[in-house]
Amino acid sequence: MKKITILGSTGSIGTQTLDILSHEPERYQVEGLAAGNNLRLLIEQANRYKPKSVCLSTKELADEARGHLPLGTKVLYGNEGLIELAADSEADTVVTAIVGSRGLEATLAAIDAGKHIGLANKETLVTAGHIVIRRAEERGVSILPIDSEHSAIFQCLNGERRSDVRRITLTASGGSFRDRKRSELEGVTVEQALNHPNWSMGAKITIDSATMANKGLEVIEAHWLFDLAYNQIDVIIHPESIIHSYVEFVDHSIIAQLGLPDMRVPIQYALTYPERRPTPTESLNLAKLAALHFREMDFDRYPCLRFAYESGQAGKSAPTVFNAANETAVARFLAGEITFLEIESVIATVLDRHQIVDVPDVASIAAVDAWARREAASI
Amino acid sequence: MKKITILGSTGSIGTQTLDILSHEPERYQVEGLAAGNNLRLLIEQANRYKPKSVCLSTKELADEARGHLPLGTKVLYGNEGLIELAADSEADTVVTAIVGSRGLEATLAAIDAGKHIGLANKETLVTAGHIVIRRAEERGVSILPIDSEHSAIFQCLNGERRSDVRRITLTASGGSFRDRKRSELEGVTVEQALNHPNWSMGAKITIDSATMANKGLEVIEAHWLFDLAYNQIDVIIHPESIIHSYVEFVDHSIIAQLGLPDMRVPIQYALTYPERRPTPTESLNLAKLAALHFREMDFDRYPCLRFAYESGQAGKSAPTVFNAANETAVARFLAGEITFLEIESVIATVLDRHQIVDVPDVASIAAVDAWARREAASI
Repeated sequence: MKKITILGSTGSIGTQTLDILSHEPERYQVEGLAAGNNLRLLIEQANRYKPKSVCLSTKELADEARGHLPLGTKVLYGNEGLIELAADSEADTVVTAIVGSRGLEATLAAIDAGKHIGLANKETLVTAGHIVIRRAEERGVSILPIDSEHSAIFQCLNGERRSDVRRITLTASGGSFRDRKRSELEGVTVEQALNHPNWSMGAKITIDSATMANKGLEVIEAHWLFDLAYNQIDVIIHPESIIHSYVEFVDHSIIAQLGLPDMRVPIQYALTYPERRPTPTESLNLAKLAALHFREMDFDRYPCLRFAYESGQAGKSAPTVFNAANETAVARFLAGEITFLEIESVIATVLDRHQIVDVPDVASIAAVDAWARREAASI
Repeated sequence: MKKITILGSTGSIGTQTLDILSHEPERYQVEGLAAGNNLRLLIEQANRYKPKSVCLSTKELADEARGHLPLGTKVLYGNEGLIELAADSEADTVVTAIVGSRGLEATLAAIDAGKHIGLANKETLVTAGHIVIRRAEERGVSILPIDSEHSAIFQCLNGERRSDVRRITLTASGGSFRDRKRSELEGVTVEQALNHPNWSMGAKITIDSATMANKGLEVIEAHWLFDLAYNQIDVIIHPESIIHSYVEFVDHSIIAQLGLPDMRVPIQYALTYPERRPTPTESLNLAKLAALHFREMDFDRYPCLRFAYESGQAGKSAPTVFNAANETAVARFLAGEITFLEIESVIATVLDRHQIVDVPDVASIAAVDAWARREAASI
C-alpha cells in the first residue's frame, strides 16, 4: 500500500492523480489533500478518498468544511497548514501540484520529512533548484517529475549512465497560437489563448504554453532535474505532442518517450516507479496518426523562451524574477488588464530592471519574488 | 582493451564493424577475421588490423593468402576453420556477420567458449533460437543484437522490467518497392530490387527488405531475443527508417530508439554495452527532417511477412524451412532464374510441402534446412 498526499488536489493534476489512485484503490492510501478555494470539490474528494487530513487556503474555508467531512478528518489551513500536511503524515510520496511558487516551502518541508516528491510544481525547481536538489540528495529522497516532458526524459534515462547523455530535447506543441505569426497576436482574447490544441490543462499553464514561457520553465527545471548545462537542453516544435521529449546520447542514439497526450501516464509513473502498471489510458497507434511533424524553435516568435534561457544561464535570482514576473503578467492578462503580447513586455521590463543577486535561502528567494511581482503589477 | 573476432569481416556489417574499431583503436584488439571468398579485402584488413588468425572459405584461398599476411598470422579455412576461429581465441566478443544459416555452428562454438555474441546473423536465431538462447543462458554470455531494429528494442528495454512490456513494434522501411502495388511487381529487375531507399546493405538482405522476408526473420528473431509471444510483436511501415523500433509498456508509455540510418550505431552499442561511446556518425535533426510517416503493415501486399509469422507460430522446423526456402529463392532471383514475385511462391510451395517436425539439435536443423533448399531449388 503506497501512501500519497496531494498538494493541489482540486486542480488538473490533482484530480487526475486521484483518478489514477481510484483505478487501483487497493494499492494506494490517500493521506492528505490540500486545495485552495474549491471547497465543494475538496469535500467531495475527502468523502470519497478518506484522507487523514485536508488543508484549505483560509481559516474561513476550513471552518466551513468541518461539518461536511468524514468523522476524524483533520482540517488545516493556510501556508502553515500546507506545510504540516506535506510533512506530518505517513505519506511515502507527496505530489506537489500547486500552481506557482507557493509550493516551495511545503515541498521543502516534505523533503525534510523524508517524503519522495512527485513534482508537478515546476516553479519549485525554477526558483529554488539549488536548494531543493541538494536537500533531496542529502535526505535521500527522489524527485520524480510529473510533467510529461520531464517524465519522458526521466524514462529515457532508465538504465543509462548520465555521463553518456549528449543533450536532451524538450518537445513543444507550440500552444494555442502556434499557427499564427507574431504580428497576428495583437488583440487575441483570453478565450482564444485558453484553447490549447492538445492538452487540457489549467489556465496558467495554458497561457504559458501559448507564450512558450512554460517551455522556458521546463528548460530551467530540466537543468536542475538532470544536472545538464543549458546548451545541452534543446526545444523543438512538435505540434502533435506525441513524442513527449527525447535524449540523445554520445553515440548519436536517441531514446524518446511517446504516447497519446494524457497526463495520467506520467502521474502514475511517478507513483509506481521503477515499476509500471496498467493505466486507464489509450494505446498510441502511429499508423492511425500517419505522420509526426517537427520544426525548429523560433526564439523571435517566442521571446519568453529566450528570456528563460537567459535567466537560467544568468542563474542566481534571475529565474525567480522570470517566473514571478511571468506569473503576475499572466494573471493580469487573464484578468483583462494587459494584452497577450504585453505578457512578454512586462517580463522583459522586470528582468531589465532587476539587478541579479545571490539567493542562498528561501527568504531571499521570497524577497526577490515579491519585488518582481510588485514590479510586474505596476507596469 | 576489448578483444573482438569478426565472422564475415568483408561484408557490409563486417567492414562497418572494423570502421568502428578503427575510430578508437586503443580500445580494441582484433583477434580473428573470417571472410568468404573476398581474398583481396581480407588481406588488406589483416595487414591493417593484425588479427592473430584469419579464415577463408576454402583451402585454396587460404594457401593463396599465406604469403600476403603479417608474419605469424594463423590461416584457417572452411567450416572447421570458422569454428576454430570463433572459439579458440582470446576474443571477448564474436561479431557474427555471416549471411545465412552457415553462421549457426560457429556461433554455438563461440557461445560454448564463453564469448559474448554481437549478433548480426539473424538466421542463427530463426533456425535455432531454442538452442542458442538456452546455451547462452547456461554459459552466462550475452547475445547483443546488431540489427538496427533489435538493437533499438534492446536499448528501449534498458532499466525496464521485462514483465512490464506490453508489446514491441518493429519498423519497416518498406524496401525498394514500397510505393508499388503488388500488381506493379511483375517483371521488376534485380537492379531495381537492389536499390534500397534508406540503407546500404548486402544484396540478400536488400531483396529480403523488398519482400518483407527480412522483417519476418526479424519478428522470429525478436521472439527469441526478447522472449515475447508473436502477438506481442507488431510491424509498422515507417518509410524514413528514423524510429528504428519501439516498446510499449503496460502503462501505454512507449520508448523508442531513433537515429539516422547508420549501422555503425548498433554495431558499436553491441561492443560498448552497457556503456556508450562517441561514434563517427551524424546527429539526427528532427526539425530538418520535418516529418516522420507511418502506415499499417499490409500482409496481402507482403505475404512473406505472413509466412514468417505463421512459421514462427508453428515453431519447430517451420522457421528453418521458411528461412532456407527464402535464402534459396533469393539466390535464384539474384541469378536471374526466377522472378521477384516467384520468391514468394517458391517459399509458399516449400512451406506447403513441409511436414513440421521437431528439431532438437543442429543436425536435425541441418537436415530440414537441406531438404528445404533442395525443394526451393527445384520449383
